[in-house]
Amino acid sequence: MIGFSSYAGVMESPMNSAEEQQHSSPLATSWSKKEEPNKNQKPKGVGGFVLVHAGAGYHSESKAKEYKHVCKRACQRAVDQLKAGALAVEAVAAALVELEDSPFTNAGMGSNLNLSGEIECDASIMDGKSLQYGAVGAISGIKNPVLVANRLLSEAQKGKLSAGRIPPCFLVGLGAHEWAIGHGIPPCPSEKMATKFSLSAYKRNKRKMEVAEEMDTGRNQTKKKRLSAENHSGCLDTVGAVVVDLEGNVAAAVSSGGLAMKHPGRVGQAAHYGCGCWAENACNMNSYSTAVSTSGIPQYTHYTCLGQKQIFDENVFFTSYFIMASEDRVLGGVIVLRCCRCVEAQQSQNIQGILVEFLWSHTTESMCVGYMSAQDSKAKTHISRLPPGTIPGQSLAIEGGVCRLMSVAE
Amino acid sequence: MIGFSSYAGVMESPMNSAEEQQHSSPLATSWSKKEEPNKNQKPKGVGGFVLVHAGAGYHSESKAKEYKHVCKRACQRAVDQLKAGALAVEAVAAALVELEDSPFTNAGMGSNLNLSGEIECDASIMDGKSLQYGAVGAISGIKNPVLVANRLLSEAQKGKLSAGRIPPCFLVGLGAHEWAIGHGIPPCPSEKMATKFSLSAYKRNKRKMEVAEEMDTGRNQTKKKRLSAENHSGCLDTVGAVVVDLEGNVAAAVSSGGLAMKHPGRVGQAAHYGCGCWAENACNMNSYSTAVSTSGIPQYTHYTCLGQKQIFDENVFFTSYFIMASEDRVLGGVIVLRCCRCVEAQQSQNIQGILVEFLWSHTTESMCVGYMSAQDSKAKTHISRLPPGTIPGQSLAIEGGVCRLMSVAE
Repeated sequence: MIGFSSYAGVMESPMNSAEEQQHSSPLATSWSKKEEPNKNQKPKGVGGFVLVHAGAGYHSESKAKEYKHVCKRACQRAVDQLKAGALAVEAVAAALVELEDSPFTNAGMGSNLNLSGEIECDASIMDGKSLQYGAVGAISGIKNPVLVANRLLSEAQKGKLSAGRIPPCFLVGLGAHEWAIGHGIPPCPSEKMATKFSLSAYKRNKRKMEVAEEMDTGRNQTKKKRLSAENHSGCLDTVGAVVVDLEGNVAAAVSSGGLAMKHPGRVGQAAHYGCGCWAENACNMNSYSTAVSTSGIPQYTHYTCLGQKQIFDENVFFTSYFIMASEDRVLGGVIVLRCCRCVEAQQSQNIQGILVEFLWSHTTESMCVGYMSAQDSKAKTHISRLPPGTIPGQSLAIEGGVCRLMSVAE
Repeated sequence: MIGFSSYAGVMESPMNSAEEQQHSSPLATSWSKKEEPNKNQKPKGVGGFVLVHAGAGYHSESKAKEYKHVCKRACQRAVDQLKAGALAVEAVAAALVELEDSPFTNAGMGSNLNLSGEIECDASIMDGKSLQYGAVGAISGIKNPVLVANRLLSEAQKGKLSAGRIPPCFLVGLGAHEWAIGHGIPPCPSEKMATKFSLSAYKRNKRKMEVAEEMDTGRNQTKKKRLSAENHSGCLDTVGAVVVDLEGNVAAAVSSGGLAMKHPGRVGQAAHYGCGCWAENACNMNSYSTAVSTSGIPQYTHYTCLGQKQIFDENVFFTSYFIMASEDRVLGGVIVLRCCRCVEAQQSQNIQGILVEFLWSHTTESMCVGYMSAQDSKAKTHISRLPPGTIPGQSLAIEGGVCRLMSVAE
């Protein structure tokens, strides 16, 4: 399913839900097409745009409302920051906090439990302006891992430590926990981060493992295949967000509780530099600012990693995702935002305009996304699903839209 | 300094030391030039080629012998493996073990101590055949971190764990240590891994930090700059190796004790996927197999990361390193190997030939390298230095060579 729609954040009658979007223009056309100016624009002084997702995986209809609601709240948190004048990187962190705080996502509160029944989280954040990033891996006892990643980023931007030491940008395990506490981030007991759902999933998975290992001894291979830990059936993967502020700065962030029943100390792609997220402001060599956040199975990290580096060449980028889809049962998702100055705005002295193009894509059964412009503050939420009858990991859904941000320059 | 020389592992009178190399052909010519066949070839049944480095940093003349000796031993270990019929990935791990075991390198034994006076190591390995990799970060109490990374890689290649769980490829901290012990890798008490040199450097650094922090209180900023922890003056960075076996499979590995006085839990680029090392066999889309291993300051990881992805376009690759050199005081090094089937060998039914091109490059004051072909088993070792009068981090040295491996096909 490849659909693309146009969404102008400053239009007077925007579409109220992504379900109502018209899936018309093909992808290549949509990327290259510049919108015509709208005479009814009401430019404001602050703004920006946010796109979030609550995990690529399987979203049951019965919980659709909750998934959409958390995406809406995450968008609202980012937009609140943008309206208060925050830069993209602060706004994206705010969106992630909301996604982590939801017991329905596999990040922060309610994360998957590892083999020892503990929660260990990965998170990273990247600032497109400085190209710096911060990340934590296998961190325990912290409610919002993204806040530690963001603090690592902001501390690193202050320059060197005493005696010329280079500040850390990636901390793991106990060292990461201690650094966080030392920087005023409060600890959270692990038992408070587990939910009824994650605890019961752990018990079921533990039992499945025992049965599978008993079967292994009995060499009953046929039934073994049916007993897989709940990573991609009932549960969801990594959450993420991408933001552009009105100065055109982009930022991306990602957070994950990782695979259910993973080995303690395991770090997934959410903490991998260049794999979990990527953000890069426009520069002399490239007129587009780009931000990406991914969700997927880490053994296929190289696809996502390559995908992000090659995103400026959209053909290569999408090719890499089609390769991903052609591999047997490779399950992943991605949200992408790219933007450039509007041509018509460049010709005007007192109007600044940014054309934002955004998309989400997944090979999983479904992916829950939300997006919002700070200029109309109306969140659109959507559970994207593969077309009926198609097989996850062998099919790909791509949808997206276009939004234009306008403001009066001071 | 840009020098390139030709080295044929099967020639009857190879050069005995890299110091004697003729620095003649410019880089671009050397990469594209194919060697003429040598009528005096003595093809053998097994073979391969290895290039190692013992760190980019500063190598004193007084210890030059020791640095060269460890590189020679590392080459020998890899070649022993290749002669025994091992694939590239096993040979590269063997080379790394030797580099880690040396008390003169900042990897394994003799690694830098962190802020708490403990040793925490990073290592990763990548198999160009499967594109799979294994990595450990901030691991303590293991003499050879690369063996844990290699074991993670080989375990992952066996397929899924019980109940369909995906095996880990990147483990950190205590979890990594416990996984290693559980897989039969013996623990090594931290105190045995520290050397007189690393302990005395720790004490000096601790004192420097105290003085710097006192000065900070006294706001004496002028002197503060002179007091930097010994990361890039007396000490060395990450070690690494790249290997091609006679089947044309490539592999790369990297290992590091990390920055002196780093925060516990800090993970550097040696453990970062796509940053510390990269290996990729020739495929339909690319006739070259390539292996890369880097050494540098992690805050500039994005340069090395990009460098490796773009290595197939040599202009972009070298441009990225020149950018690195143009940034103020960006210190790093890289070893690269790429190879393809010899044209003349393709025309012959019973001769297999591989043309190997290799190089090392650094912006640090010096870099100690060694290389060896399994066909003549003569290690060449070399301490590459920036030209006199040039400034580390603002100047770049590139040197390399060409070697042809020939064998009779069975």
